[in-house]
Amino acid sequence: MPSAENLRSAIRDVADFPKPGIVFKDITPILANGPLFQDSISLLCDTAGGTKIDKVVGIDARGFIFAAAVADRLGAGFVPVRKKGKLPWNTRGLSYTLEYGENVVEIHEDAVKPGEKVLLVDDLLATGGTAAASLQLLGDLEADIVAVSFLIELGFLKGREKLGSHRIESLIHYAD
Amino acid sequence: MPSAENLRSAIRDVADFPKPGIVFKDITPILANGPLFQDSISLLCDTAGGTKIDKVVGIDARGFIFAAAVADRLGAGFVPVRKKGKLPWNTRGLSYTLEYGENVVEIHEDAVKPGEKVLLVDDLLATGGTAAASLQLLGDLEADIVAVSFLIELGFLKGREKLGSHRIESLIHYAD
Repeated sequence: MPSAENLRSAIRDVADFPKPGIVFKDITPILANGPLFQDSISLLCDTAGGTKIDKVVGIDARGFIFAAAVADRLGAGFVPVRKKGKLPWNTRGLSYTLEYGENVVEIHEDAVKPGEKVLLVDDLLATGGTAAASLQLLGDLEADIVAVSFLIELGFLKGREKLGSHRIESLIHYAD
Repeated sequence: MPSAENLRSAIRDVADFPKPGIVFKDITPILANGPLFQDSISLLCDTAGGTKIDKVVGIDARGFIFAAAVADRLGAGFVPVRKKGKLPWNTRGLSYTLEYGENVVEIHEDAVKPGEKVLLVDDLLATGGTAAASLQLLGDLEADIVAVSFLIELGFLKGREKLGSHRIESLIHYAD
């Protein structure tokens, strides 16, 4: 049986990345292990709760890794949310505030049709800014958000509070 | 049966992206269509030719979409090759020349063990610089490259010539 505890055990703490004082949760040991990676995808698929998903949305770039495999498993389409200027066709964009400065995420305006059932997948829920902006873009396209699913949640950053009333799922939760 | 011709038909030409005079091959209509996306993954898996793959390597960021789903299907580990500064642990990096300026790709130094069977997957073979640099990093780690597999090859850019004697596979080939 896929176990989130096995996933947690494989995560590597990297001190002072991306800057001094931050302990980064390195997920590459999960990715590099075929059975563990498959377990992570199984558990993320389970967060759909049996609802038939039309589109799995992944966030640039690590989110693509999980979201694409989930989409393939579920037989759903895959939709990328990308950093500014990366999507070639007609986009809708949204800027949001970071600790220092601003970021912009974009989605193709034909990426989701009104009423389609969407699973939003990313590797990490930290402060929640990127996920909140992505949800707003999906709301503008009238997506029906089934769940917002993360491999890891850094609970102490309270990102969940930015994500409204959606169902938020995380496989691995760090309280502090 | 998965058909590369169906994939080709779904690609959207976008004029003047990312700059004037370039016609960009937009693959998002393939991604957005669940059955087509699954077909693309099936065909990429086939390029392993039945060899048991230890690691599927994907290139940041669109390459992650295909490589991750292929890794999940094959039960292999997934390894990201990333732009400079994105990987948190000990890396090996390589800079290579672009039309204007320079780019750097990095890989974790424990990403592949000597002798492991590797499938390198990316969405696009254009001038081949990124793939060539990735192959050199994998060579430094003593990976055994089974094949280098692309969704799309822009044959007229002759990127294939930069990739040495490896077996190069592309699902969709544009001659001009």
